[in-house]
Parts: sequence; C-alpha cells; structure tokens
Amino acid sequence: MADPRTIYDKLKQRMAEVAELETIRWVLEWDEQTEMQSAGASWRGRQAALIDGLAHERATDPKIGELISELENTGDALGEADNPERVNIREWRRDYDRRVKLPKSLVEEMTRTAVEGRAAWVEARKNKTFSTFAPWLSKSFKLARKAADLYGHNGEPYDALLEGYEPGITSKQASEMLRDLRQRLVPLIEAVANAKRRPKRKHLQGNFPLATQQAFNAEVATWIGYDLTRGGIGETVHPFCITLGPDDIRFGTRYRENDFSDALTSSLHEAGHGIYEQGLLREHFGTPLGTAVSLGVHESQSRMWENRIGRSHAFWEIWLPRAGNHFPELVKRKVDDVHFAINDIQPSLIRVEADELTYNLHILIRFELEIALLSGDLAVNDLPGAWNEKVREYLGIEVPDDTQGCLQDIHWSVGLIGYFPTYALGNIYSAQFVEAAEKDLGGFEDILRKEQPLVIRDWFNEKIHSQGRRYMPSELVEKVSGRPPSAEALTAYLSGKVKDLYGASV
Amino acid sequence: MADPRTIYDKLKQRMAEVAELETIRWVLEWDEQTEMQSAGASWRGRQAALIDGLAHERATDPKIGELISELENTGDALGEADNPERVNIREWRRDYDRRVKLPKSLVEEMTRTAVEGRAAWVEARKNKTFSTFAPWLSKSFKLARKAADLYGHNGEPYDALLEGYEPGITSKQASEMLRDLRQRLVPLIEAVANAKRRPKRKHLQGNFPLATQQAFNAEVATWIGYDLTRGGIGETVHPFCITLGPDDIRFGTRYRENDFSDALTSSLHEAGHGIYEQGLLREHFGTPLGTAVSLGVHESQSRMWENRIGRSHAFWEIWLPRAGNHFPELVKRKVDDVHFAINDIQPSLIRVEADELTYNLHILIRFELEIALLSGDLAVNDLPGAWNEKVREYLGIEVPDDTQGCLQDIHWSVGLIGYFPTYALGNIYSAQFVEAAEKDLGGFEDILRKEQPLVIRDWFNEKIHSQGRRYMPSELVEKVSGRPPSAEALTAYLSGKVKDLYGASV
Repeated sequence: MADPRTIYDKLKQRMAEVAELETIRWVLEWDEQTEMQSAGASWRGRQAALIDGLAHERATDPKIGELISELENTGDALGEADNPERVNIREWRRDYDRRVKLPKSLVEEMTRTAVEGRAAWVEARKNKTFSTFAPWLSKSFKLARKAADLYGHNGEPYDALLEGYEPGITSKQASEMLRDLRQRLVPLIEAVANAKRRPKRKHLQGNFPLATQQAFNAEVATWIGYDLTRGGIGETVHPFCITLGPDDIRFGTRYRENDFSDALTSSLHEAGHGIYEQGLLREHFGTPLGTAVSLGVHESQSRMWENRIGRSHAFWEIWLPRAGNHFPELVKRKVDDVHFAINDIQPSLIRVEADELTYNLHILIRFELEIALLSGDLAVNDLPGAWNEKVREYLGIEVPDDTQGCLQDIHWSVGLIGYFPTYALGNIYSAQFVEAAEKDLGGFEDILRKEQPLVIRDWFNEKIHSQGRRYMPSELVEKVSGRPPSAEALTAYLSGKVKDLYGASV
Repeated sequence: MADPRTIYDKLKQRMAEVAELETIRWVLEWDEQTEMQSAGASWRGRQAALIDGLAHERATDPKIGELISELENTGDALGEADNPERVNIREWRRDYDRRVKLPKSLVEEMTRTAVEGRAAWVEARKNKTFSTFAPWLSKSFKLARKAADLYGHNGEPYDALLEGYEPGITSKQASEMLRDLRQRLVPLIEAVANAKRRPKRKHLQGNFPLATQQAFNAEVATWIGYDLTRGGIGETVHPFCITLGPDDIRFGTRYRENDFSDALTSSLHEAGHGIYEQGLLREHFGTPLGTAVSLGVHESQSRMWENRIGRSHAFWEIWLPRAGNHFPELVKRKVDDVHFAINDIQPSLIRVEADELTYNLHILIRFELEIALLSGDLAVNDLPGAWNEKVREYLGIEVPDDTQGCLQDIHWSVGLIGYFPTYALGNIYSAQFVEAAEKDLGGFEDILRKEQPLVIRDWFNEKIHSQGRRYMPSELVEKVSGRPPSAEALTAYLSGKVKDLYGASV
C-alpha cells in the first residue's frame, strides 16, 4: 500500500479541482445576481448545470471513495483524530457518502431549475403575479423532495435537506428550539407593544445618495475587519455573501435612498459572513477544514455584527458623527434617537428588515410552510393564503400583496429548501457565543468605545472561523459557549434590550 | 453508417458543450476585468486554466475528429456547400485541426500566465515599473512562440498566430497593406499639421459625473441598435466587449470625468462589437455559423460606429442637444465646435485615444515590435527603448513614461499576440463596407439626420453579422464591398475629412 501521505496528497489534489469548479459556479452566481439581465438566464442555467454536473461527477468519482477508504484504513498514521488530515478525511467521507446518493442528471436539473426559477421569481415580483411563479415553485419542491428521498430519511424528508445546511440537527430539534423561542418572545413583543416610549423611524430617514452610502458602508465594513482587498461589495436585489476564491470573498447589498439604515445593517450582516470566510485557514482552502461548519454558525456571525455591534449604543456613539461626514443631514441627529430608531421593534412584513425579536417569527412561518410544502400537506397554489394566514397568526398583520408576502425571499426559487431554520439557529448560537466572548474579553460596548472591533473579530477567528469543520455544529456551539444550544441566552439578551430601550418590564 | 443528420446532431451537441465552457471562461474574464481585486488573480488563474483545459480537451476529443470525418465523407447529403451544416462541418474541421496541435498542458499554462500576467501588468502600470512586468512579458512571448511553432509556419512564426485572429491573412500581406496605408497617411497628417484651422479640445471638456455619463452612453448605444436587455455595460480599465451567452453580450468602458468624449467614443466602439455579436444568428449560437468571422471584420464594425457615425456632423446635430439634457454645461456649445473637436487630428501617445489617421501608425508600431519580440530579434528588456524610438520615428513625439508607452495596452499581458494588425485591417475593411452600404442606402449623414441608424445596423446585420463564418474574411470583404481589401477606400475617406474639416488640400 502506498504511503498515507502520498494518498492524502493525491486525494487533496482531486478535491482542489472540485473546489475550483465550485468557486467557478459561484462566479456565475455572483454575476447572475449582480449584473446579468433576465434574458441571460436560460444559457446561464446551462452553464451552471454543466459546472455543477462536472463538480458532482468529480466529487463522486469512485476513485475518491477508494482513496478515502484507503486513508481510513491507515488508522492514526496521519496523527490524532483532530489533526487537519484526519478531520479532512472524516468530512470528505461524510460529503462523499451524501453526494453519491444523487445522480448527476438530478444535480444538473436542480441547477437549471434554480437559475431559471430565480429569473421567474424576479419577473413574478415585478408583475406581482404569484401564478407565473407557481409552476417553478412546484418544480423546485418536487426536485427537493426527490433529492430528500434519495438522501434517505426516517419519514421526515425535511431532515435530509436540513442535514445539508446544519449537519447533525433534525427538524424536530430545530422545531422544538424555535417553538420554545417563540413562546419566550411573545410576552416580550407584547411588552414592547404596550410600552409608552416609541422610537421614531424618521431619525434614519432622509436623502442618502447611493454612491455615498456605498463609500460609508465600505468604511464601516473595513472597520469591523472585513478585508476589501480580498473581496468587493456589489449591488444586488437580495443581499448575500459568496466565496469566489481564497482571496476573493464578496458581498452584495441593496440600497434605499430614503433610509440609510437598510443598506448599513445588511452590509454589517454580509460583512460578518465575509469575515467568517476570510478567517478560514487559507492553507486549507478547498478542504473541509478550510470550510465553514454550517449555515447556522455562519449566521451567528453575520447576525452578531449586524445586531450586537451595529445596533449597540457604543457603535452609534462612534459612527453617527462619522456618518455625518458622508450625510450632512445626519449631523444634528442625536445618538440616542438614532440608536432607538434602529432598534425599532414591531411586527412587519419583510423578513430582512425585521427587528431582532419578530425576525424569528418570520423564520418560523417559513420553516412550517416549507415542511408542509415538502411533505405535500400544503399545495403550492395554496401557499399565498397559508402564508397570509400565518403572518396574521404570528405577527398580527395583514399581507397586502405577495411581493410583501410569499414572494419576498429568493430561497425557494433557487432550490434552497430546508435552509430557513438556520437563520433562527444563528440568532440562538450568536447569543451564546457573545456571552462567552464577553466573559473572555469584557463587555462589547466597552470594546467598541475603545474602537477595538478587531479584538472581537480575532476572538471569533480563533474560536470559530479557523476551526473550519473540525467539529460538528452543535459540538462547536457547546465547546465555545459551554452549553448546548437553546433559546435562553438569546431571550436573556433580548429581555435586557427591551427593558433598557422601551422601559418595559418583562 | 448512421444517418448524416444524426451524426451532425451528435457533433453539434458536443460542440455546444464546448461553447458552454468557452462562455463560462468569458464570465470569469468579465468578472476579472470589472470586479475582481488583484488578490484574486492567482486562484482565478487556476479556475480559468481549468475551464480552458476542459474546453480544449473536449474540442480535441478524437471522437470529434471522427464525427467530422464521417460527415466529410457523406458528400452533399447535407445540402449545398454553403448550407449551414456544410459550413459548420468545414469550419469545425479547420478549428479541430488547429486545436489538436496544442497540448492541454500548454493551453492551461497560457491561461494561467494570462490571468497572472494581467495582474502584474495592472501593478506595473500603477507603480510605473516596466521591470516588474518584464518577466511576465517574456513568459507570454515564450509561450506564444511555442504555440506558433506547434501550429506550424513557413519560417514566420507570427503567421501562425495571426491565423487565429484573421484566418487566411499572412503577416506579409498585413504588413504590405499597413505600410501602404502609412505611406498614404503621411502627407495627410502633414497637411493637417500645417493647416490654419485647429479644433479646440475644450469643447469636449468640463465636469461630467460618472453616473450621468453612464446614462447618456446607454441612451446612445440603444439608439444605434445595441440591445441592453441582452447585455449590460460595465466600468473597466480597458474597454472591451464579450459574449457570455446568446442573449448576454456585454461591454465595458472607462470614464474620465473631465472629458465626456472618451467614454462616449469607446462606448460607440464597444457597442459596435456588441451589435455584431447580437446580430449573429441566435439559432446557430456556439457553431461557426453563429460566430464572428474574424477580429478584423469585428473591428470594422466597432470602428464604423465609433468613427463613421460618432464622429460625423449629423450625429452631433442630433446628439449635442440631447447631451445637453444630461450635462447642462453643454447646452451652449455649438455643433460645429464639438464636431471639430472630436475630430482633432494630431500625433498622441495613447492608441485608444488616437484620431482616425494616426491610430493606424500606433498599430504599425505594435505590429512591428511584436514580430521582433516573437522572432527573438528584440529582447523584452529592450522593449521600452525600441517602443519610444518607433513612436519618435512614426509619430514624432517623445514618450514620457512606460504607462504612456509600452505598458499602455493589455494585449500582450494576456497573451494576445498577433492580434494588433486586425485593428488596422478593421479600419481598411470598414471604409470599403461603408462605401458599399452608402451605394445601397444613400449617404450615412442623411440617414442619421432622419434618425434611422437602425437602417444601417440592419444592412450590416444582413450582409455581415448573420453570415457568421460562412466565408473567409477577405472573401467576405470582397463579396460585400466588391473588391479585395486595400488602403484605398480608407485613404479616400480620410482625405475628404481632412479637406472638409481642416481646409487642407492634399
């Protein structure tokens, strides 16, 4: 038998080529979302499907399976179980066993459907016609169901999909955590609704030219530690962050000229994703050890920069005067007013603009609906009604049209099904991580006042980003925060905030 | 033997996949030139090399050769020699025989060198240091020479490269045409230099915000028939046009805020390339019949829109008032002044900003230097000196630094060697085409005054764009213009212009 090191290097090289293909796919994706016109969608679908098919073909080449088996049989020749090589072998095995379950033709079909489905979604939003999008949504769920059945599950197809985004978590566990969270949030949301003090949105409003916002947001993103020379910021319909290479991690944001807070908070959010990706160990790029552990943990980082930093009082003490340099009309505004306004808590229609409390209910709505759509309990044509009904029940508001309802998110149109709960899990993880970080570093507000956000970034670099996929997500959460994930820390943090800002006792 | 139609369809499907790969490569290229930071170049080089390697592997698959042979042996079973299928078979054969001469490893190395060489070129321009770029330039020419020798030639390696851009034309033929052109231009340039009337550049100058220029240029590009819904306009260091799919043909332009004419003329130029690509027959996309015939003919289209339309008096009669809607300071300017200013003829340093006469001398300089670099008669380290010497000889001016000298063009950095003469050939072809078009349609100035630029576009659509690679370039030129390519028509047009504008008798 060949030397384990030689086998490992051979396997690593093959997987590097898969990584090249995968990042080519993300270049196509970035371009599609930032520059391509809808007329380009059909050909782009073919290009993307070709690349996904090639990546799938290479990643599922039986030779890969053989090399992994050979390495598994060499025991500890490559060091301890948490050595980089051993971690990669373990995770390559997990990926391989999962990937081989799907035939290449299905992967290609899913990709083509994603690209064309997204274009149909954009059109449907433009024309406010759910009906033209419905066939694509049907197809997307049908393909997802097919994939779930091929991956295998114990009667709950949703689990098979969630496993791809948040390994080791079942829909039952996620559901319990989210329902528990909801129960804890309801009295908080009520307390806010009954509070005498109300923030005023007008403190965030005015006239903010796009180019100026771009310059301002780039300054803030750089301040928190996102490296612009290894990335870039684009303008997109749906904010997102994407990795095109080890030194090319970009994000896109959308802008509203009458409210600068929208693009700012989403820039902080996406820069948070970017900081995670830029903090992965460069020398392990393209291997599991150089890959983020899960979407939930990813979201814990983006939500942290968005909410724990960007919605803190200390942040505005520093950044309101600087914002005034870009936007003269902000000069006279008061830190307390802007800080309160950006922490406005009230049920609203759009998830990505929701406050920290009600955001989680938006997720629960999507989570419950996609489980029902996937199992077939809910028909696609009945989605708008079901959506509006849930919004009424959980948020107490009426949906005026589908673009503010079930057509608002891109995810299902591109086949991202089983993904939504990771957003709420991210909030849960984030609160636990911040508790642990503050124990080590002291309060975040003090750190920000000293202008040391990089101290925070570096802590997360060490504890989370540089770990890649060394641990399973819930293992990592427990290791870093000292306890298994639960809604407690998040609720404690939000209770404090509601009390401080709204004077509401809960 | 299988039915020829079945074999043809099988071949066509294989070649469609090559087209998918090639256009994926152009998405990488577009992104590289519009958005990617230099830190991303190294990984991008790997991605691009992987795609080029795959495209090469598939296009040179022996099975392709077999299918072509089988079809060649079916005689006229697929119709006349100029039937779409027969044309494609003929041209697939030409491509195949050429491509198989290069090994995949060389193709990949050339691509990696192109991506990293371009990044080195950008850096060298930034720091004004030719020396840091010299090793890349050396490598680029070394690889080009290797490729030329593998393609095969009769002692003139340059011919083997030129064949890839302008099939059927030798460097001797190109050289004769360009030297003849030079001889004819020298007295014209002298006449202009001695003329009493001089245009004033200030009529093009002022303060023109980038976003406003973008809106204005998009309006002009749409007017001449470029379809923005099947493309897009970006901001790039080096203006270019690129095809990412049958309905996704984009171009990039650079902007100067103190002179709106720079971006406008390059937008007209690149939109001209775009109109050609958008005019290829959509149903033949990815086959030779759906591909432009040569770079020279391509350039004939871009130069036509830039010069024959964009530098005409009629164009400014219509567009100066409209430009005034975007740029208030233009409102009071006079058509005659702006028209004369945009036809300013004088030796200058930068090719892409040169006037219609001296532009051709810029090409001759590059053409002669690249022949010498390729043959080894000129050492890379001696390039700056040789460049400056030629500029002195042909243009009578001094080069102050290499960014305005031999570092100004992107081409050599990305391995585009043997490409430059096609620019001057484009000017030559263009003049002949316009003569023919005016015979059919009447004078362009009248057509423009009637706001019917689409009449011109449609004529070229029919005569040239939709023909794809049905004819060889010089065959097409002769067919459309009624005579073989020569410098005559171009000189006649330029003489007339010099006489009209400068009152110079020649």
